[in-house]
Amino acid sequence: MSTDLFLDRYLPLIEAGLRDAIGSQEALPGYYGMMQYHMGWLDEFLNPAQAPTGKRLRPVLCLLACEAVGGQIERALDAAVAIELVHNFSLIHDDIEDVSETRRHRTTVWKLWGLDHGVNCGDGMFALAFLQLSGLQDRGVPAELALCAQRVLTETCLALTEGQYLDMSFGTRMDVDLDSYLRMIRHKSAVLIACSTRLGALLGGADAETADWYARFGENLGMAFQVVDDILGIWGAEDETGKSTSTDILNRKKTLPIVYALSNGELAACLADAQETLTEGEVARVVSLLEQSGARAYAERTARDYSERALSCLEQAGEDTVPRRAIRELSLALLGRTS
Amino acid sequence: MSTDLFLDRYLPLIEAGLRDAIGSQEALPGYYGMMQYHMGWLDEFLNPAQAPTGKRLRPVLCLLACEAVGGQIERALDAAVAIELVHNFSLIHDDIEDVSETRRHRTTVWKLWGLDHGVNCGDGMFALAFLQLSGLQDRGVPAELALCAQRVLTETCLALTEGQYLDMSFGTRMDVDLDSYLRMIRHKSAVLIACSTRLGALLGGADAETADWYARFGENLGMAFQVVDDILGIWGAEDETGKSTSTDILNRKKTLPIVYALSNGELAACLADAQETLTEGEVARVVSLLEQSGARAYAERTARDYSERALSCLEQAGEDTVPRRAIRELSLALLGRTS
Repeated sequence: MSTDLFLDRYLPLIEAGLRDAIGSQEALPGYYGMMQYHMGWLDEFLNPAQAPTGKRLRPVLCLLACEAVGGQIERALDAAVAIELVHNFSLIHDDIEDVSETRRHRTTVWKLWGLDHGVNCGDGMFALAFLQLSGLQDRGVPAELALCAQRVLTETCLALTEGQYLDMSFGTRMDVDLDSYLRMIRHKSAVLIACSTRLGALLGGADAETADWYARFGENLGMAFQVVDDILGIWGAEDETGKSTSTDILNRKKTLPIVYALSNGELAACLADAQETLTEGEVARVVSLLEQSGARAYAERTARDYSERALSCLEQAGEDTVPRRAIRELSLALLGRTS
Repeated sequence: MSTDLFLDRYLPLIEAGLRDAIGSQEALPGYYGMMQYHMGWLDEFLNPAQAPTGKRLRPVLCLLACEAVGGQIERALDAAVAIELVHNFSLIHDDIEDVSETRRHRTTVWKLWGLDHGVNCGDGMFALAFLQLSGLQDRGVPAELALCAQRVLTETCLALTEGQYLDMSFGTRMDVDLDSYLRMIRHKSAVLIACSTRLGALLGGADAETADWYARFGENLGMAFQVVDDILGIWGAEDETGKSTSTDILNRKKTLPIVYALSNGELAACLADAQETLTEGEVARVVSLLEQSGARAYAERTARDYSERALSCLEQAGEDTVPRRAIRELSLALLGRTS
């Protein structure tokens, strides 16, 4: 597809930018090595490796938004790299908070090096993200715009922690309603995608209104992604997602299908009666109750609604350009839609 | 003493700034309540409390440096608040990394609300610090200078995590030399004090050279503080520091007296032979070996050297002013010196 042409150009730049951001801190190889391991470039003995790195979706969207408004991607590259660093910092800490032992088919940082190093390594990547963004001025970005970008990323980071707080606080509650759930994923997931497209557009030279449409596109796309992820977390095949499909149920995570079905008394009773660690039979019973209550169909409809909204925002974001069509195509492909 | 006049003026401003930074985020009282608890304003049920808050040393030094170079403290207040937020974010995470259950005579955040919330709450305070700094522009600080302040704080945060990494990596090693130890405390502690005085001077309108002298003063003062803290960690009375005096030995922390004495074969053998959790008798034997090896006298001499260097840098930092004399007086008082 036509987005491949963009990806072929962007991905090496993003990867080089990330390696430069983390790898240039050579004074402490043991410290930065943990970050490089997390990024997939080193193995657990800190030897070179080629492990899965993730899709780099956020920086790609940032650069696409920049080009879509007629900007030079060099202007947005530091922001793209910073956003990917924020995403990965949050993954390192999420793995601690969720007690996850694997990520992208590999042992997580905290599990390999201990909780203390895991927390600190995430903090360091958080700081590196802001350090990367402070390079904007050297790329010829005016100081006012560079400050604006700093503020957008900072507000996004705060929102991410609010979303994480909501997610964790749902853990033991049975009374999570749909509005609370949607607020949680908006903060936990959608804001970072919105930040990517907003900063890409702003640094590409867009006016505030166009940048707002790009942000709204990103936010709705992020909502759609999260709901699709929730669906995969229950019905997706393990080899596709790299995590056990029953993990979300075992961890009693309040994902959209669960939240929807909790108004159905049977599911609430089933979860309340289940062992602290759900048995295989109990997991199967939860999945079956979800199907019966229409939770899967509801979640699929919700994902579709958000992706429609995203595409509608994109259409209103400035002029129709080749990179903007690539954004549309990429979004549809990532959501598993053909049109 | 004359510094009281400054403290009386500064502390209410700093406290109001901190409360505004954390307390204005009212949408999630349970989330920001954990931060407010850590700051000493709420009890564990999130009811108002008046618990120890810490000395607010870093923001006080920031404002003093600002006034010492002839600046208006309103210009530096956001930076002062941001630095105190960074300090407290790092304490929240340090408590997790060190498995500390008490801080300032109260239960730590992670111990009260769990590890997951502790990690996330620290991340949120980290983001709030940068959000606070992004308010500089609204105080009339030029965009270029605001960006410079952002970069200084960012580099400081990265250095803090490097220092924390070094500190944790020393844990199990017996071959830590004095240079490595000094590098560790420089990153872990001194850089944040240096950041306080540098940003205070810069935002007060100092030229780069004067700001550098203020930074060097702060760095040496920070080194002196840390060494004094190391001494108190072994020989200080528990009611003064709020933590058990043997904690540092029980945790096998590589503080300056220990690092100095490790070249003494007896101490290394004693620590190697000790139970995983040192007995009371083993702790007493370690303290006695430290005294015999001259470790205490060496540490006291080192603290004095750094404080001399600090005062000498201060003398070279621009003109002698009343606030600069207050900085000198405050430093001596905090180091337990009379002159």
